Amino acid sequence: MHWPKNMILRQSLQILWRTPLHEVLLWRSRWAEGRRRCYSTALSERLRERFAFKKATHSIAQLYLDPEISTELRLASLPVEQKVVVLHGWIDSAPRKLSKRLTFATLRGAQFDFVTSNGSSAVGLNGDSSEDLAGKNTIQLVQMHPENIKEDDYHSLRRMKQETPVCVEGTVGIHKGTDGRYEITIVKITALNDTMNFASQVRETKQWDPKDRYLQLRTPALQRALALRSRVASLVRTEFSELGFTEIETPLLFRSTPEGAREFLVPSRTNAGKMYALPQSPQQYKQLLMAGGVHRYYQIAKCFRDEDLRADRQPEFTQVDLEMAFSSAADVQAVVERVLTRVWRDVRGVHLEMPFKRLRYADAMSLYGIDKPDLRGGLELIDLSAFATSTRHSNYPVFEILKYRPSGPSDAPTLAGAPDGYPTLRSPLMYKIDLAKEPAEAWLKAAASEFKLKFHSGTSDVGAVAAVIMQAYNIQDGDILFACTRQQVPFENPTPLGRQRLHLLHGKVKSDEIAPLWVVDFPLFTPVERQEVVDGHIEFDYDSLMSTHHPFTMPVLSDESLGAVLDVASSAPDTHTQLDACTVLGQHYDIVINGVELGGGSARIHDSMLQRLILAEIMKVRGVLRDPEAEQPENPFTHLLTALSMGCPPHAGLAVGFDRLCAMLYGSESIRDVVAFPKTQSGADPLVGSPSEVRADVLLSYHMQLADKK
Amino acid sequence: MHWPKNMILRQSLQILWRTPLHEVLLWRSRWAEGRRRCYSTALSERLRERFAFKKATHSIAQLYLDPEISTELRLASLPVEQKVVVLHGWIDSAPRKLSKRLTFATLRGAQFDFVTSNGSSAVGLNGDSSEDLAGKNTIQLVQMHPENIKEDDYHSLRRMKQETPVCVEGTVGIHKGTDGRYEITIVKITALNDTMNFASQVRETKQWDPKDRYLQLRTPALQRALALRSRVASLVRTEFSELGFTEIETPLLFRSTPEGAREFLVPSRTNAGKMYALPQSPQQYKQLLMAGGVHRYYQIAKCFRDEDLRADRQPEFTQVDLEMAFSSAADVQAVVERVLTRVWRDVRGVHLEMPFKRLRYADAMSLYGIDKPDLRGGLELIDLSAFATSTRHSNYPVFEILKYRPSGPSDAPTLAGAPDGYPTLRSPLMYKIDLAKEPAEAWLKAAASEFKLKFHSGTSDVGAVAAVIMQAYNIQDGDILFACTRQQVPFENPTPLGRQRLHLLHGKVKSDEIAPLWVVDFPLFTPVERQEVVDGHIEFDYDSLMSTHHPFTMPVLSDESLGAVLDVASSAPDTHTQLDACTVLGQHYDIVINGVELGGGSARIHDSMLQRLILAEIMKVRGVLRDPEAEQPENPFTHLLTALSMGCPPHAGLAVGFDRLCAMLYGSESIRDVVAFPKTQSGADPLVGSPSEVRADVLLSYHMQLADKK
Repeated sequence: MHWPKNMILRQSLQILWRTPLHEVLLWRSRWAEGRRRCYSTALSERLRERFAFKKATHSIAQLYLDPEISTELRLASLPVEQKVVVLHGWIDSAPRKLSKRLTFATLRGAQFDFVTSNGSSAVGLNGDSSEDLAGKNTIQLVQMHPENIKEDDYHSLRRMKQETPVCVEGTVGIHKGTDGRYEITIVKITALNDTMNFASQVRETKQWDPKDRYLQLRTPALQRALALRSRVASLVRTEFSELGFTEIETPLLFRSTPEGAREFLVPSRTNAGKMYALPQSPQQYKQLLMAGGVHRYYQIAKCFRDEDLRADRQPEFTQVDLEMAFSSAADVQAVVERVLTRVWRDVRGVHLEMPFKRLRYADAMSLYGIDKPDLRGGLELIDLSAFATSTRHSNYPVFEILKYRPSGPSDAPTLAGAPDGYPTLRSPLMYKIDLAKEPAEAWLKAAASEFKLKFHSGTSDVGAVAAVIMQAYNIQDGDILFACTRQQVPFENPTPLGRQRLHLLHGKVKSDEIAPLWVVDFPLFTPVERQEVVDGHIEFDYDSLMSTHHPFTMPVLSDESLGAVLDVASSAPDTHTQLDACTVLGQHYDIVINGVELGGGSARIHDSMLQRLILAEIMKVRGVLRDPEAEQPENPFTHLLTALSMGCPPHAGLAVGFDRLCAMLYGSESIRDVVAFPKTQSGADPLVGSPSEVRADVLLSYHMQLADKK
Repeated sequence: MHWPKNMILRQSLQILWRTPLHEVLLWRSRWAEGRRRCYSTALSERLRERFAFKKATHSIAQLYLDPEISTELRLASLPVEQKVVVLHGWIDSAPRKLSKRLTFATLRGAQFDFVTSNGSSAVGLNGDSSEDLAGKNTIQLVQMHPENIKEDDYHSLRRMKQETPVCVEGTVGIHKGTDGRYEITIVKITALNDTMNFASQVRETKQWDPKDRYLQLRTPALQRALALRSRVASLVRTEFSELGFTEIETPLLFRSTPEGAREFLVPSRTNAGKMYALPQSPQQYKQLLMAGGVHRYYQIAKCFRDEDLRADRQPEFTQVDLEMAFSSAADVQAVVERVLTRVWRDVRGVHLEMPFKRLRYADAMSLYGIDKPDLRGGLELIDLSAFATSTRHSNYPVFEILKYRPSGPSDAPTLAGAPDGYPTLRSPLMYKIDLAKEPAEAWLKAAASEFKLKFHSGTSDVGAVAAVIMQAYNIQDGDILFACTRQQVPFENPTPLGRQRLHLLHGKVKSDEIAPLWVVDFPLFTPVERQEVVDGHIEFDYDSLMSTHHPFTMPVLSDESLGAVLDVASSAPDTHTQLDACTVLGQHYDIVINGVELGGGSARIHDSMLQRLILAEIMKVRGVLRDPEAEQPENPFTHLLTALSMGCPPHAGLAVGFDRLCAMLYGSESIRDVVAFPKTQSGADPLVGSPSEVRADVLLSYHMQLADKK
């Protein structure tokens, strides 16, 4: 596996072992005179070649930009004899022996010129396919060999494997039969390292072993992904600094939080028995910065979540985090729109219309059956509450339908499957309108029995109702209807029709269109979901509420929201008033693009009494009491409540998933493509072998030991 | 502690408790009509004021830039009646009652305008003192009160405490008796939150309780520190991107490394019994990026070190990390010089001469007795090996002196104390040349007996030798000499004379001068330090060597260095050759400014066989064998060695301590001033209370438990 098959090593060791000790000692004594053993000499000569190499004069792209070269070549399309260039890179395609004395090969440049010296996007960031890029960054090498090459001639192109990193000195000529592409006639080529046998990365398309991540990174596709991510970060920062934001790093060694079921713990050696926790977001520290008089804060922050990695998640991820003092939700949204608009313009050349669309949570759920709708492709749901109510399940009264008109006979939609973890969840009723076979109202009859519909008109003449509906919503012969029920304000998300809509639209929306959207007025609280699913319906415990996002979100300033919260939170302990999760709205907002939730934020509670009431009386956080005078030592929010009471200004903020943002700009479904060293589904990094076992005695120095198996 | 002393809360609860339950229920039933209890009403009214406030029209600095205002005021120095401005900020000085109807106070603006919209440094970054800043960001408020103010008039300036965040609407006028400074005549002022009693931050200069960090952050000094750090980061990134670097994030959930005695461990829930480790630097990942074909990588990276926090260290710190493929040490140094030169120019207006000075480690030690010399202030040490050798301790033969000429009779230098942890370490011999009292050679006689000097000339005529030395080095009557001994190549660092020099220079160097320096050619290996100190000399075990920096550093390409390493590493297992730690040099370089080591880097070993030989045969890392075919599963470097053998190009890199860099640019001794939320010496954050205890059942979910007390 090592360089020339350890030949030299073996040889020399034999020599060494054949050598009597006194001679070895003699050699050692000759050190000072600089005499070396044959072994070290051979080895060090080879190594010196690898470490003392010429500086590159050009990247491949720079060759084409060099006027000296292009002029010469225009005059005579011969190699530019008088100018020897030095290139760095890898042998990209296996060298081809053309004659006894002639070898060709392709060199892949050491540097993809994605970004020009002034930082603006050049080759590759917009548009170019990986193949284009590969082309742009390769050049043909030609080597004329001497009369006969020794078998061990290390510096013959002919002997070099693919992916050998080389330093090439040569002259530039026109590659015959190409549209003016260059080729290099080798004067000297030096192998700068060994390489094992594997196909060139550039044309490699296999499934990659995570262990080979660094090889995969050599592919133009991932080189482009890395360059794009770097460029996006730079654009985001430029925009923020132009908007007067201060970039501030907040600690990663944070403290364990009550809701931190999914946090990583970090035992401290110097504080026996105590732990830090890695933050799931800089939320608390950035609110402390607001109390600290910081006007506009941002950070591209590392965050951590120790959860079983469903879907496309990573245990460590990056978010663009911002917070603004003396500001409202609208102020934050305006900033985020500017940043996203700039990024899409500069990276993708796409213009986003400002201000972005806004949709209330309730409307998103009733029109699209999901809180992060993809606005492209239409297919809005139809709420039929005006006509009938479902009595099948008291909490799921709303009767709604989705009308689908097939594009042709071949277009036969299917029912959406149940989502992961909810195999028993109900599917919509699917009904094809076929007037030749049955009366128009057949579908409604079917729905009526399926969902135990109660018609408001009280009429039993379903036909009449069906007629009105079909006319109102232009339902025609051949249309396919999907019917189902939902909660008044759905906490089941997506709803069955929401799932069905996604299923119908899957793969049908133009991908180049970008449809940004703010979803606002979320319920401040969400009823806790019960374990059981009864007759396909998810059961909720409307008496025990949790924060829909986090307990620092400010309620909407209406009687129904702020008023109701205060009413309940401040009522005497013995009066069992109850909060209506559906009517209480929070000043939370999500930024959604093409059905992907890129981020979310809120106006925060900066009044310590209100925050205290919510934590103590509604969230029922252990250790938090309504009365500030009766402060408990175990209150995990003392620092925040105190900070709020020290003249903390009003503030609002947001966090955008940076990995997700880059993946979207890169045009990939998976964030793994825009993360240099992603973890696997199990949270492992097979490349370096993390996480790994640690010796018990080491653990002990952290005052820890593995739990006894029970 | 809460707003108006919970008066309203108490009142309303009394009301509530006096109320029969059926009435409460009645109220509840009236929700829909929007009727509220007196309690909630009072509360929600107050809260609405706090959350629904006007947008600011100006920052204080912007007032002076507004032509509309300045013109109006020039015409008639009356308040600009027709223009009402809205300002955000804090009540900075306690309101002063001037008459029954007139109140004055100072408003501190919500925003220090350090940075203009185009990101260039405006107020504050260069020069301005905190007082200047405080002045620039405050303005006088004037309120005319109505006939009589109610005691609980919440909106009277007179009632407001310092540090109350407010929204002020008012008209602009000239503050009489000032050089044209403005004042605001209040139309309406709204308190946006409560505040407890404490003096204004701007004039506050007490020792800060870490718990009050966010209050300290409000001071102009720290506001400036935060702005400066943000600006430096932005400059560094701009320069790197102009140089074609790609910013790449490397994982923070890394694996435990053999030398990781000081790392933080992170138990994984999803991988029972296994741990991640937080990286002490991105070293391995960035070398993998080089194997991954990344041309130029940089990152402003979070790193972690779980050590007892000596001096000015933090358990989590930030470093500017870079690595360059197909590059040499010189290439890296050129880049770093450009970055630092730009930062000092743009932030401090200081011009640094490129290229920076270079000093070999051996020369730094013999001229200054330390490997991070402060070049300002001279006082070079004098090596007297040419004349005499000390025989007092075989490993400390070099006899050297430091000549100090007092500036006057009052200038009486003292001996430097012993360094922390080395109380028994020897001090230099201090001798004042006093020709009136004794012969010129007296000092040498004293030194001769103290250090058991052996004179090369073999002469016993010490006087003659002394005469030669004193003439050669211009030693005169009244000079003070410090004499001591050191190792040939000192691993004791600083040496006694090095410490003495620092002691003499302390506080004497002009602080505005910036003297950058590259220290190069470090010993690749350092002999392990023995525990005992014999007769004031640190004892070393020259048979057991450790990497001076890290095992990935490339030796210098000379016979004495590379040759010697290969010679030893590759010699047959049974031959006990030994490496001379003093003669083997590594391609490591430190960037030192004014005696502060800002960072260090090296050309790396990219040849897997050489890396393997050094790890296996010299470092003796458990699990690493010389023969790649005999790879061990427990080899912690398999991934790196494999990556190197896959066509990894030559590479070199460096890391600069970002906190230290910012502290230096800010002009502070301590990095705590440029870290938003620093940890204490014990590694704790008293503000949020980290680290903290975690319940045993929670630990159990991580498969961990506290170690049984032994």
